[in-house]
Amino acid sequence: MGRWQPDSRGRLQEAALALYSERGFDQTTAAQIADQAGVTERTFFRHFADKREVIFGGSAALRDRIVAGVAGAPASDGPLDAVAWGLDAAAAVLGEFRQDLSRQRHAVIAANPELRERELAKLADYAAAIADALHQRGVTEPQATLAAETGMTVLRVAMQRWADGAEGEDLGAIMRDVVAELRAVTANG
Amino acid sequence: MGRWQPDSRGRLQEAALALYSERGFDQTTAAQIADQAGVTERTFFRHFADKREVIFGGSAALRDRIVAGVAGAPASDGPLDAVAWGLDAAAAVLGEFRQDLSRQRHAVIAANPELRERELAKLADYAAAIADALHQRGVTEPQATLAAETGMTVLRVAMQRWADGAEGEDLGAIMRDVVAELRAVTANG
Repeated sequence: MGRWQPDSRGRLQEAALALYSERGFDQTTAAQIADQAGVTERTFFRHFADKREVIFGGSAALRDRIVAGVAGAPASDGPLDAVAWGLDAAAAVLGEFRQDLSRQRHAVIAANPELRERELAKLADYAAAIADALHQRGVTEPQATLAAETGMTVLRVAMQRWADGAEGEDLGAIMRDVVAELRAVTANG
Repeated sequence: MGRWQPDSRGRLQEAALALYSERGFDQTTAAQIADQAGVTERTFFRHFADKREVIFGGSAALRDRIVAGVAGAPASDGPLDAVAWGLDAAAAVLGEFRQDLSRQRHAVIAANPELRERELAKLADYAAAIADALHQRGVTEPQATLAAETGMTVLRVAMQRWADGAEGEDLGAIMRDVVAELRAVTANG
């Protein structure tokens, strides 16, 4: 999930998202993606295990960055503030993506029930890892799970706003705004 | 999702959960469930479309009850208070289940990635329906989605506590406790 490069991997991602958007995820083959990117199918499979990996590649690394953000929060921070450090770390990774491709990616996932279920499962995995990191900080249940899952709700809402928003908006700032909105919603009933 | 009856449907659910727990969901067939419940396979399929339906049957009715709870909240209630009315409605439905079967159901879902993904998809559907009900009440985005999804986090955490807890605990009271915990987590950082 590094900076988008004009290399084979980057060209494959761009071609895949374009084809998934045009034809649908189920109707697109790895061969077609490779063809559109001007590389061989073999090259496709050197970069991605399968078609789905183009959408969800790098998620283990992202989870690790989020967990490191939570674990590295000041000891005096409460659970949601610690999760906000994890969200900052996520924004630093995800904000490197080209916004137009991120928008396409969202639309592709939204259009496919299987991809939607997979996306929810990824977020649930992140939440479980964050809850563990909070336990390490001495946070007990149910506070740890509530803060972790609430954080993933913020991530999802912020990513959607960022993808739908004007070019060049700062994802980290959007995440912080959404955390503030969440606090307002829970404070005011 | 009515009261658990000692009829064919109830016996089938009980037999299915016992077999899913013992052998695993994937290793259990509809014929085995019918056999264990002392009915024909034909009877199984009169009650359930497939093996998965035993676990997730009644979810559309549950969603409608939750939405009705949110829609019927006092006009002066804020978004999270309105969602809490929906959670009360959910507790009234779900609290009718036998706790031991609910505990088994949780364990079966937790043990199977496909069922976990399906469960998350159901909760996401409920959240979308709740957000719509909040829009009808004049709540804007992102508050509506934040309140709705946060509510589904509360539902999941509360159901887990109820299933893990002492016999005879009131699910509605647990839901209200978890909402209070959520408010404390978001207020105190």
